[in-house]
Amino acid sequence: MELLNQQMSFAGVQRQYKHQSSCLDCDMVFSVYLPPQAQHDVVPVVFWLSGLTCTDENFVTKAGAQRIAAELGLAIVCPDTSPRGEQVPDDPSAAYDFGLGAGFYLNATQAPFDKHYKMYDYVVHELPRLLVELPLDLSRASIMGHSMGGHGALTIAIKNPDQYRSVSAFSPICAPSQCPWGHKALAGYLGVDQKAWEEYDATALLLERGCRLPIKIDQGEADNFLVEQLKPELFLAAAKVELVDVEYGLHPGYDHSYFFIASFIEEHLRFHHRYLG
Amino acid sequence: MELLNQQMSFAGVQRQYKHQSSCLDCDMVFSVYLPPQAQHDVVPVVFWLSGLTCTDENFVTKAGAQRIAAELGLAIVCPDTSPRGEQVPDDPSAAYDFGLGAGFYLNATQAPFDKHYKMYDYVVHELPRLLVELPLDLSRASIMGHSMGGHGALTIAIKNPDQYRSVSAFSPICAPSQCPWGHKALAGYLGVDQKAWEEYDATALLLERGCRLPIKIDQGEADNFLVEQLKPELFLAAAKVELVDVEYGLHPGYDHSYFFIASFIEEHLRFHHRYLG
Repeated sequence: MELLNQQMSFAGVQRQYKHQSSCLDCDMVFSVYLPPQAQHDVVPVVFWLSGLTCTDENFVTKAGAQRIAAELGLAIVCPDTSPRGEQVPDDPSAAYDFGLGAGFYLNATQAPFDKHYKMYDYVVHELPRLLVELPLDLSRASIMGHSMGGHGALTIAIKNPDQYRSVSAFSPICAPSQCPWGHKALAGYLGVDQKAWEEYDATALLLERGCRLPIKIDQGEADNFLVEQLKPELFLAAAKVELVDVEYGLHPGYDHSYFFIASFIEEHLRFHHRYLG
Repeated sequence: MELLNQQMSFAGVQRQYKHQSSCLDCDMVFSVYLPPQAQHDVVPVVFWLSGLTCTDENFVTKAGAQRIAAELGLAIVCPDTSPRGEQVPDDPSAAYDFGLGAGFYLNATQAPFDKHYKMYDYVVHELPRLLVELPLDLSRASIMGHSMGGHGALTIAIKNPDQYRSVSAFSPICAPSQCPWGHKALAGYLGVDQKAWEEYDATALLLERGCRLPIKIDQGEADNFLVEQLKPELFLAAAKVELVDVEYGLHPGYDHSYFFIASFIEEHLRFHHRYLG
């Protein structure tokens, strides 16, 4: 790992690393915030998965999370949202919702995307192994994300309940099999057989496997994507069927932006901290 | 004024307005955060002046100030850092430290800059007059800024002690007559006669006029610009001569970035709140 940047923030340190990813077959950059407690001890970690068009930097600069992470003694790890580089195939029309910046946290099976687009393996397996160099206690980990990253956090947590202690999401894509963003991404990365899509659909996974992890979801009621793309009602209905508790908040006036995330990030980090102890 | 954007943030609202500026002779954009208290009452206001290369947006997205402004019931007004538009002359080599994005909060006297570069008049006179449309109590105003904007806040406050109740700065350019950024800007906007520069040099102004306003300055010790460009020691020495108290903090490890600003913005807003009542 090559340290690209390091800046003091709330008495801790915000770092950016570059490394060669074997599962994505390209160079990748990720960010990590180490709270002041990490100077003397290992600390628990929260993974943040960003949404469409983001890199590792959006959350770092806009969410205001370092203040609370410093208080609670939590590290926050922010991966990029897709493989990167000139050799990595993009959406044919360079659309924002597929290809670069839109990896959907899955393992692609369709050419030409199956060579690089393995963001599920990257987040679940490769990235945690890299992090052993840092003063982190990876046995105490939680995961959260926004929009496409909320989809990523929910699907990854439901499939790996032993690896995370809690999961939360802002404005997640709750049922990608049933919305335009998801249709395009799942068909493009996984093919047209919708059976394969269920592996990466939080609502379908919850109905199939249930979830014993604590789940928190917050959603802005003035979010332009709420009705067509996000569909939290489908996930909440599945949770009811499976007798899974979801701490759900619908917030009048808030939209899909980082202004919404910043307004509620403290509640999310305190939620995770309860289980990371 | 034309409302360009409006987003809920910490139960208040972050807005961006566009208007035709008469003193700058161009269209301008500024941002304003209205805390939840502004829904029912007028609120005091803090002006934020940004540094080189910034627009009205940097502070809004990166400083994390809305949380504290919402708690304290403060509005925050963020102007742009220079006149804008194709008709506005820029640095001949489009350098970052002169011309567009680098108005230095002064009234230029040298052609071709004297037609548009009147940021002092804009911030002190024109912008407050526009704000009467909003639920603000402009008799309770303070001013703060970063780097070039710290220079702007200090010089404007020292020259207009009846218009502001307190002034603060992060990493300000404290003596532009005595540093490369200032030499270039003051010579370019005001001409080579250094006598004219004293009107826009916080250290020179303090020695000439003193200051009865409360002043707070914070500076990162790991700031790459500290020794060559910022020179807080000159301002502090002038304050000692004038028997002016400055609440000064030098913070080991912190650099010139918004990570530093975000780490200490709460202290600055609480400082201003003490005097805004």
